[in-house]
Amino acid sequence: MDTIHAMMTRRSIRAFEDKPVAEDQINILLEAAMNAPSAGDGRPWQFAVTTDKAKLNALADQVDEGNPLIRQAGAAILICFDPAREGFKGFGEQDCACAAQNLQLAVHALGLGTVWLAVIHIPPRITGCRNVFGVPESLIPFALFPVGVPAEQLPPEYRFDEKLIHREAW
Amino acid sequence: MDTIHAMMTRRSIRAFEDKPVAEDQINILLEAAMNAPSAGDGRPWQFAVTTDKAKLNALADQVDEGNPLIRQAGAAILICFDPAREGFKGFGEQDCACAAQNLQLAVHALGLGTVWLAVIHIPPRITGCRNVFGVPESLIPFALFPVGVPAEQLPPEYRFDEKLIHREAW
Repeated sequence: MDTIHAMMTRRSIRAFEDKPVAEDQINILLEAAMNAPSAGDGRPWQFAVTTDKAKLNALADQVDEGNPLIRQAGAAILICFDPAREGFKGFGEQDCACAAQNLQLAVHALGLGTVWLAVIHIPPRITGCRNVFGVPESLIPFALFPVGVPAEQLPPEYRFDEKLIHREAW
Repeated sequence: MDTIHAMMTRRSIRAFEDKPVAEDQINILLEAAMNAPSAGDGRPWQFAVTTDKAKLNALADQVDEGNPLIRQAGAAILICFDPAREGFKGFGEQDCACAAQNLQLAVHALGLGTVWLAVIHIPPRITGCRNVFGVPESLIPFALFPVGVPAEQLPPEYRFDEKLIHREAW
């Protein structure tokens, strides 16, 4: 899929068909996420991946307030922030967000769907992710992405707003 | 350009040819940036754009320690974080990072080059951006992107690292 087209048509997907996500698709998503830029090229991220239904159900219950969303997904990918690998202090969240955006665009480019479930700054969700994946205390669960075959088709959303652009100066 | 290919071949470009960046290219970059996802769909960003040589020189002197990089660029785009538009408190930097990553991938997809110059958390750079663009005190300059026709061809960098992936659990 064309890069600009992917950005202009990607939507958050919150309903999935009962179909698996292939291992080679998951690997492409992880390649895309890890090829994001990061401050000082620190790459301060680690990933947990599951395709196991029991784990997906546990994530639904412990991270997403019982919402059926994660239960329906074929896989879930958790991005964790690794402060020990931060290239420049204070930029790790931005780095992880870039990895997350690459992951989301890659999901869409493969014809799959996902939605960004924020975890960092939300203590009960952090605890839930730690419980389900055994995330070490040295890492901070950043965001969780249920991934699946979309069961909804959403029209593109066009967010361009000329009022937010300042040509040459305010 | 294919989406996954763009992610796997994009590099930070630090040398530009003395050529302009067209207005319609700049508009595509801004469309891409503004179509990024954001927490609560708050879209907490604003943009400043210049193609003016005097302003590019001022940015080089006041933001990038006199480095010739920004002088050579055909344009520069500043992303500002707008705390008043933050959808969920504490997620604005992640939102702006997503806009920045879309912008960087779009630059590469158009055959142009850029490099992410961090501004937020770096007080002298924040002051420099405020001076050059007249950024209001209510906004926080986030990151500056000089954009130009690449004067260097860099091979792809492959950052995949299996050790950072935890299948099912740690």
